[in-house]
Amino acid sequence: MKHLRKELWFNTPHRRDYINITDKVQAAVDESGIRNGLCLVNAMHITASVFINDDERGLIADYDKWLETLAPHEPTTQYRHNDTGEDNADAHMKRQIMGREVTVAITDGKLDFGPWEQIFYGEFDGRRKKRALIKIIGD
Amino acid sequence: MKHLRKELWFNTPHRRDYINITDKVQAAVDESGIRNGLCLVNAMHITASVFINDDERGLIADYDKWLETLAPHEPTTQYRHNDTGEDNADAHMKRQIMGREVTVAITDGKLDFGPWEQIFYGEFDGRRKKRALIKIIGD
Amino acid sequence: MKHLRKELWFNTPHRRDYINITDKVQAAVDESGIRNGLCLVNAMHITASVFINDDERGLIADYDKWLETLAPHEPTTQYRHNDTGEDNADAHMKRQIMGREVTVAITDGKLDFGPWEQIFYGEFDGRRKKRALIKIIGD
Repeated sequence: MKHLRKELWFNTPHRRDYINITDKVQAAVDESGIRNGLCLVNAMHITASVFINDDERGLIADYDKWLETLAPHEPTTQYRHNDTGEDNADAHMKRQIMGREVTVAITDGKLDFGPWEQIFYGEFDGRRKKRALIKIIGD
Repeated sequence: MKHLRKELWFNTPHRRDYINITDKVQAAVDESGIRNGLCLVNAMHITASVFINDDERGLIADYDKWLETLAPHEPTTQYRHNDTGEDNADAHMKRQIMGREVTVAITDGKLDFGPWEQIFYGEFDGRRKKRALIKIIGD
Repeated sequence: MKHLRKELWFNTPHRRDYINITDKVQAAVDESGIRNGLCLVNAMHITASVFINDDERGLIADYDKWLETLAPHEPTTQYRHNDTGEDNADAHMKRQIMGREVTVAITDGKLDFGPWEQIFYGEFDGRRKKRALIKIIGD
């Protein structure tokens, strides 16, 4: 069994951002030489997500508005987590909706995707350095 | 390490449907000959889910109603994604709540499940041909 | 390829509880002798979650309140699942928000985590014996 580990680093300009990382994940698969296996991609921070959906500008705007409806940032005093001096409790909730991680099949050396699947890093508390992890195992 | 890849195809009669695929996934495990490993099952489309829960008619009705409350289909004009000519922005949101994928342990050749776990394909924009992927790795 | 399977048992005092199981999962990784691979941790029950987030008391209180807002327990008659004699339909929904499972990379024999990642068992219908499953594969 082969394996490969790689980190992707981010420092987003806004509190919330959505970054397509599909090409970087495929590059890691290429580097691994693995033809068949599983590729885990996860946020290493608990206020960010890795998820798979469509790279369409309108949809990303819809997600951003919808997440703010389900777990609003303001008023920050509504969250007990923010009593610790943080203002990011909402980001911990948005991340649970969108998920921490994806596991993707690798077949014949490629991410085994349907027609519109793209991997995103979803940032909900950005403007600082944060990471995602890629771990690939297989043959 | 052994591996097996299989697609399941669907063409649901309604916009939203919930299909128990547990037997088909176990059949793929049987075919693989893998005794211990991991089984990934994921929607290959971004308006559908694969999730694990109870095969109980009342619960499925509850999920369907609840998802419509969290991410309503109407009015379709509330979503910028629908400006592209689609009417399925809500389906992209419902799928994030229910999840893209499940990873299931395989132990002694069986899906290693608790008493009520069943695997479902959750369709949120049906009435056309769509797929789920099964990828199994192990020994 | 090596593999290890382990069950964790719970019997929480309250209907809803959040238990940090990180040390128990790392102990299973240690026992497996696996240096590089993947570690799946999943609830074996469909009214419970395994998720990764921060072990901070205020945040856990926020999650508990937020989940009750998104999928309220009362009135129990609002859910068709409860017509079966259950009162736990809300727990099936809370579990979908928080997720069934996590897959964690193992690198050099350790759970490959960012600075604040901790694994939780989230119970939404407790006060009885329930289980989570750990399945580890790798070399």
